[in-house]
Amino acid sequence: MAFHRFIEDPEGWATVGNEVLFGNPYLEVHRVQVTSPTRGTPFYWTVAHRKGAVVVAPMTHDGRFVLVRQERVPIRATIWEFPAGQIDEHAEGDPALIHATGLRELREESGYELATGGELVSLGHFFPSSGFTDEHSHLLLARPVVPSPRGSQPDENEAITECATFSAADVRAMIASGEIRDANTLAAFARLVALGLI
Amino acid sequence: MAFHRFIEDPEGWATVGNEVLFGNPYLEVHRVQVTSPTRGTPFYWTVAHRKGAVVVAPMTHDGRFVLVRQERVPIRATIWEFPAGQIDEHAEGDPALIHATGLRELREESGYELATGGELVSLGHFFPSSGFTDEHSHLLLARPVVPSPRGSQPDENEAITECATFSAADVRAMIASGEIRDANTLAAFARLVALGLI
Repeated sequence: MAFHRFIEDPEGWATVGNEVLFGNPYLEVHRVQVTSPTRGTPFYWTVAHRKGAVVVAPMTHDGRFVLVRQERVPIRATIWEFPAGQIDEHAEGDPALIHATGLRELREESGYELATGGELVSLGHFFPSSGFTDEHSHLLLARPVVPSPRGSQPDENEAITECATFSAADVRAMIASGEIRDANTLAAFARLVALGLI
Repeated sequence: MAFHRFIEDPEGWATVGNEVLFGNPYLEVHRVQVTSPTRGTPFYWTVAHRKGAVVVAPMTHDGRFVLVRQERVPIRATIWEFPAGQIDEHAEGDPALIHATGLRELREESGYELATGGELVSLGHFFPSSGFTDEHSHLLLARPVVPSPRGSQPDENEAITECATFSAADVRAMIASGEIRDANTLAAFARLVALGLI
């Protein structure tokens, strides 16, 4: 009894109960009852279920990164971050659909698109807060990107106040100073560095 | 009307409504009504309120990192990560209390402690998923750390299956391969790299 296709019970785990305590279009709170590899007696855990997400690190021809500045209500702040968006549950497990969602979010939020002949490089996925939510984000590098003739097209529920390009050194300095402080951008940066891509 | 001391209404933001839709000891779901710098008409947002957290990147005398392997119920996986734990709300805004919580979690989860004369270096904070939760994590580098004579003392609600040390090159390889995939460890790595600490 998995929440969706991405989180399943692998060997050693069994979900023996799953009660929805709260739900609205943005999140569901589940009370699951599970056994784990080291805990054979079923126990309860509270899980905030969210759709998966896709994060795109967009790199221009000359190695600059495109970031957007977005108002984030839960933290009452406007922060610089890589373009990102949620993916529909039916897209999980299908890289082509995840890529398409990433490219759509990139274009809508930043007004950039993958250049003809450009590539999407998978940087894997990560879990924003694995102790309380099953939310996960797929990370992609898009290179090179170019301004789209269609421009940006922000979602009516979002407020993106700026879009700009930054060198890898700029991004590094914004991380060092704490200006970049969202998990999506930090995780993408960590993977880019670890993979030798910047 | 802020949720707690860490998230307040800065200039341009006003929280004009705040209704608790769901609550248990682990999370609260709020429906807030706010105005933002670009949105003067109050609008609603769903926010999952969580305590803050502290993450400790523990480095030994010879530059190795201590990681723990922990069962994470929401994602049905056992993953390598830096020691971490939640902080009480009264500790927010008091670095000494945050540091004390970090050192306690370090010792309880890994069995390591800060060496005499060692230092805690702040790596700032980050937001795991700023579109839906106010959760935030303070990041600390602890160096050097040494095995504690008191050993580890896992929380009865946690299942830490292993503890081991890894070189910076090991950590980098585990990030590149996707084996390290939690935001805490990825964000700490990003800050360590950006600050030139590894």
